[in-house]
Amino acid sequence: MADTARAAILPYFRQSNLKTDNKLDSGFDPVTIADREAEKAMRAVLARHRPEDGILGEEFGQTAGTSGRVWVLDPIDGTRGFISGTPTWGVLIALSTETGPILGVIDQPYIGERFIGDTDQAFVQGPAGRAKLGTRDTRSLEQAVIFTTFPEVGSKVEATAFRAVARNAKLTRYGMDCYAYALLAAGQIDLVVEAGLNAYDIQAPIAVIEAAGGIVTDWQGKPAHNGGRVLAAANADIHAAALDILKQY
Amino acid sequence: MADTARAAILPYFRQSNLKTDNKLDSGFDPVTIADREAEKAMRAVLARHRPEDGILGEEFGQTAGTSGRVWVLDPIDGTRGFISGTPTWGVLIALSTETGPILGVIDQPYIGERFIGDTDQAFVQGPAGRAKLGTRDTRSLEQAVIFTTFPEVGSKVEATAFRAVARNAKLTRYGMDCYAYALLAAGQIDLVVEAGLNAYDIQAPIAVIEAAGGIVTDWQGKPAHNGGRVLAAANADIHAAALDILKQY
Repeated sequence: MADTARAAILPYFRQSNLKTDNKLDSGFDPVTIADREAEKAMRAVLARHRPEDGILGEEFGQTAGTSGRVWVLDPIDGTRGFISGTPTWGVLIALSTETGPILGVIDQPYIGERFIGDTDQAFVQGPAGRAKLGTRDTRSLEQAVIFTTFPEVGSKVEATAFRAVARNAKLTRYGMDCYAYALLAAGQIDLVVEAGLNAYDIQAPIAVIEAAGGIVTDWQGKPAHNGGRVLAAANADIHAAALDILKQY
Repeated sequence: MADTARAAILPYFRQSNLKTDNKLDSGFDPVTIADREAEKAMRAVLARHRPEDGILGEEFGQTAGTSGRVWVLDPIDGTRGFISGTPTWGVLIALSTETGPILGVIDQPYIGERFIGDTDQAFVQGPAGRAKLGTRDTRSLEQAVIFTTFPEVGSKVEATAFRAVARNAKLTRYGMDCYAYALLAAGQIDLVVEAGLNAYDIQAPIAVIEAAGGIVTDWQGKPAHNGGRVLAAANADIHAAALDILKQY
């Protein structure tokens, strides 16, 4: 499925003929033919190989299944980054059961880099070859590197909450979309805090990060696989430190 | 030189043994052994092939020359991004004369992507092969995509100035360091507005962007090759629209 999505998307990436539609009446939430064709391509693979499974996709919604398993798809997470030519958007694929995601893929087609996590393993395959994923053991917020995609985060209170965590951290960075979750799984950063997410934005990152030893919850410490406010952390200590602040909001 | 820098840096990228020093007494401006070794490696190439040229490098300062030409080097532009594992830092190499940079290279070693501009040509060589660089012809600020690395930009007045431009744009994105200038040269975005830059941060982007048809000045419309407040634009119209706002600050 990830290979199929790559093949569908890359002919459009950085092409001047790429047409962008706006999903919103007010504001700018872009969607492109690349988003739609990649999800169609992944759905065709599922129709052939897993016709009994359900599907939840960003562009074409829900398709009921009979197996209890659901494939959760975001063909291009970070479409704003995609239409700006950045190499940090990704294809997100998760396989979920009632209890949440059990397999996740974060794929960056242009770099040729794929982060995979399931109940047995977590690894990345990319320009530097194949490597095991493992989160890092930073113990204090003061030593932590924190990411979010948009400085405004979400609502005013959500932005305030984010800044309350970030001002205690060593370094704050922006703009990476799903790639930030991949960096957390790869042991490069310590925290990702976001709000206003959908299930298809976070299920693949949850599976990859948990397989790599990290923790993903909402801002109350509850499961985050339905989206909303999300806290992803490298380990239990750093999760607890951030949660202490976020749960006040 | 760019090949040499790649070879010096990549063994340290995303390695858990990478030691980071802080250049500042207050705040966090990281430098690593990768920065230093990459600049040393590039200086060794120059000592062999261009001993008569001057050098200005971020890590080892100025070396006088006799030719009137100066190589301006930033071995890792975006060290904060580098130590976070993002793939959007770059090696910057410029060749400058009295009038400013005449050759520029923005190299992203992990992706294997190199943006080059000189007085004859502008092209990128990367995962999608080789392609000509050309800025785009967006005519109004309302249709523009604008980037800066840090939402705080610089001083308070500089942040206010940036937001005055950005709130008129279609889309604002953060966090790309020198990669944003490469995207502008590649016709993917329209504006990069930054402040507090050094000569070695901007000379290579100037050469690449100008070779691709864009314009780079300071916020008064004057040459930007000494750094400071920088406005990079895809074309004259979008440059004039942003400058009208910025020059008030």
